[in-house]
Amino acid sequence: MNAQELALIAEGKAWTFAALRAEARRLAQQLAAFGVRAGDRVGMLLPNTPQAVFLIHAVHQLGAVLVPLNVRLTVAELKQQVRRVALRCLVHDATTALQAAALAPEAPLLDLSTADAPRPADLSDLPTSAYLHTLVFTSGTTGTPKAAMLTWGNHVWSAIASGWRLGVQRDDRWLLCLPLYHVGGLAVVLRAALYGIPIVLHARFDAEAVLASLARDRATLISLVPTMLKRLLDANGDRPLPEHVRLVLLGGAATPAPLLERALAARVPVALTYGLTEAASQVATATPEQVRAAPGSVGHPLRSVRVRVADEHGEAVPTGAIGELWVRGPVVMRGYWGDAEATARALTPQGWLRTGDLGYFDEAGRLWVVQRRTDLILSGGENVYPAEVEAVLLRHPAVEAACVVGVEDAEWGQRVVALVQRAPHAQVEVGVLQAFCREHLAGYKCPRAIWFVDALPLTASGKVDRKAAQAWAAQRVVEQGA
Amino acid sequence: MNAQELALIAEGKAWTFAALRAEARRLAQQLAAFGVRAGDRVGMLLPNTPQAVFLIHAVHQLGAVLVPLNVRLTVAELKQQVRRVALRCLVHDATTALQAAALAPEAPLLDLSTADAPRPADLSDLPTSAYLHTLVFTSGTTGTPKAAMLTWGNHVWSAIASGWRLGVQRDDRWLLCLPLYHVGGLAVVLRAALYGIPIVLHARFDAEAVLASLARDRATLISLVPTMLKRLLDANGDRPLPEHVRLVLLGGAATPAPLLERALAARVPVALTYGLTEAASQVATATPEQVRAAPGSVGHPLRSVRVRVADEHGEAVPTGAIGELWVRGPVVMRGYWGDAEATARALTPQGWLRTGDLGYFDEAGRLWVVQRRTDLILSGGENVYPAEVEAVLLRHPAVEAACVVGVEDAEWGQRVVALVQRAPHAQVEVGVLQAFCREHLAGYKCPRAIWFVDALPLTASGKVDRKAAQAWAAQRVVEQGA
Repeated sequence: MNAQELALIAEGKAWTFAALRAEARRLAQQLAAFGVRAGDRVGMLLPNTPQAVFLIHAVHQLGAVLVPLNVRLTVAELKQQVRRVALRCLVHDATTALQAAALAPEAPLLDLSTADAPRPADLSDLPTSAYLHTLVFTSGTTGTPKAAMLTWGNHVWSAIASGWRLGVQRDDRWLLCLPLYHVGGLAVVLRAALYGIPIVLHARFDAEAVLASLARDRATLISLVPTMLKRLLDANGDRPLPEHVRLVLLGGAATPAPLLERALAARVPVALTYGLTEAASQVATATPEQVRAAPGSVGHPLRSVRVRVADEHGEAVPTGAIGELWVRGPVVMRGYWGDAEATARALTPQGWLRTGDLGYFDEAGRLWVVQRRTDLILSGGENVYPAEVEAVLLRHPAVEAACVVGVEDAEWGQRVVALVQRAPHAQVEVGVLQAFCREHLAGYKCPRAIWFVDALPLTASGKVDRKAAQAWAAQRVVEQGA
Repeated sequence: MNAQELALIAEGKAWTFAALRAEARRLAQQLAAFGVRAGDRVGMLLPNTPQAVFLIHAVHQLGAVLVPLNVRLTVAELKQQVRRVALRCLVHDATTALQAAALAPEAPLLDLSTADAPRPADLSDLPTSAYLHTLVFTSGTTGTPKAAMLTWGNHVWSAIASGWRLGVQRDDRWLLCLPLYHVGGLAVVLRAALYGIPIVLHARFDAEAVLASLARDRATLISLVPTMLKRLLDANGDRPLPEHVRLVLLGGAATPAPLLERALAARVPVALTYGLTEAASQVATATPEQVRAAPGSVGHPLRSVRVRVADEHGEAVPTGAIGELWVRGPVVMRGYWGDAEATARALTPQGWLRTGDLGYFDEAGRLWVVQRRTDLILSGGENVYPAEVEAVLLRHPAVEAACVVGVEDAEWGQRVVALVQRAPHAQVEVGVLQAFCREHLAGYKCPRAIWFVDALPLTASGKVDRKAAQAWAAQRVVEQGA
């Protein structure tokens, strides 16, 4: 890359690669003065700021290990994560000072707003591919936290394979409005540095701000999750995006079919992707042309990434049959930090990552993701895929959003229930929606209960929080004595 | 890549990556037994055979330096090259045994047809990016031979940037009918290994064989020079290629406009590229869509490669103005082996490679290559671009091929003359073609003499051999006493 090319646009300012490198170097020296050495874990408790981008590169320069932390977690949750990885240093700023203070007994704090002067340090820009670059906590918000160990090789291969699929063009700029503490956001920072293209960084997703920025900052690429795409279409009145936007990388959750149809009708160049933290982000991605040809498929696995649709014995099932998605290749994590048991459950001795997700390959070799296995509802011996039931509910004009979960049932094991957010001003009764479902779904798939909610619970990354929805539904069942 | 995936198809056989690796390893051990160590130069005097592919990887495994030699050169020419680089070993087979024997005083010979049993050796597959991988002699067939030093980093960056431009797809296969001793052929071998895709190797270019192979072996990519494309269109009756051929990478020489129009009319997905040995192959490449939008442009420089259109002081000229193309980036060679003078002429202290080629950028940032500077004709103080004159000649229906060169002229410095190959059965007089040129070209650009030839002289890589044409024309002028 050329040092004088643009590397970062944020907060109304811009940095060249030379400036970005200098800022990262300065911060690396601050960290070194603070006692951080190669191999040490450095916690990042920061919102999407330029400083967070500098920190990602600074930790790399020191050969230390980046641990991005979700700023939306409670102190108790953060404490559990921080204890798990034993931080040498926790970096925060004024916006996260309160949470950081509560974590002070667990890790020495480095406040970016008052940090010490930098001192000379031993910096390197040529890490080996085995260098442990990041510990990323998987998005699950309950249970024991698991930190995926991602090497520099994982990230480099991910960036290269992604670039081969999506192309890397002369005038590319990547609009980044995903949180940097999730792999989807972090991967954009690393890709942009490896490609030599600028990031247009947003502190958070705001549909109006993103639309204005697309026009002003001329991003050609943008990464979104489905909820964000929906809001963007709403705010833009279903008009096409500016012509220079060549690709909207849509991932993070199964995209409802009606939303995808709406995006295609608005000529939004959606690239659908299936990825996960444990594989350093993308595993398979369909280009906009492929999405138009087969809407809903996530396309072929990226080059160098292999996907097996496995039966219960780990054997590949025939084309068209649903099974668990197993992933292998240079993007797969080394394991979970300090958790040999979880690692052994996730990685087979042959190096396959068991994703827990379900899907199948079609005759053309395209991958279709059916459901996260952990979201699968088992009712009376039948498998119910929440996504399928939600797709039906979403086809009803009165339904704005829906989340289908299973609640415990003494008789059936699990019972299908739905949380529904109605469209503005829509008048619809539960009975109508239940009848609508019966028209389109086998009886065992129809929700036994439908509850209207003002808004579905969302995770920090803007996905529907199925665990929260499930907890809410379970509580509701108890209250109703049902 | 997966070891069980296909890596090579040739001579009616196929090798997986595991098999290719084993063959390369075996050959590396033979080389080691022969005394080859890391850093030693290994000459390759082989036609396009599977053994040549194994050798390319074997030399790499040893950390030695590959020196591909042009099997079509005379013994005297080869001797000059071999002396220049001091080979530790010259590898040949039965087809090149005679030439090799004549070179025996210059380098120990290793005959692949009778080679010794392999012995254990110290092999490595993780070279650094600074590792000197190849010495490639530039195609010029006269003057002192110059061997471009290409590092592993040059090749890896070239492969990555090419993949970003052209895409790397799940079912890609590259049909390789360019000689392996030129950078265009060598780069396909390295790219394929890095992408994990198979090569379909042809011993030589034969239009009928290539057409049959495209249908049978299902290659999706093929690299050609213009002469080959023309023969392919002839042999195929201007019908489209099989649908799975997604890209024809066309490089090596300025493509005549009529040929490009003909290829586009036949719906051949041509990607036009500008590249050179000193930059490890591609510098700029236009995708098939870009070629359709702006036929003749070689598109934007590849990502990480910078091109400056320089004036005589090395400053960038304005958009649209013609200047010398300077190239910079991680694909640029380290210099010429053992030739500090030539290196100093080619590389500026800032790392720019002076290509000697002329071109310009249009308003859309697309590069157009006008002419190799060394081919430029200076006549009466005016610059004449042979390609421009040839394009006019080629528009005449009676002209099959044309080569315009300059011959010395006491009065004008140089005089424009043309060698013309007539279309089969075409009847046309010199006067008619001269009149045709005067209709379309400024007077000073019109050929003072036009000679009909049965065939234009070609180089080993199938390009028109301008130096040979020029020598022939000069001789002709002497004979005619003109």
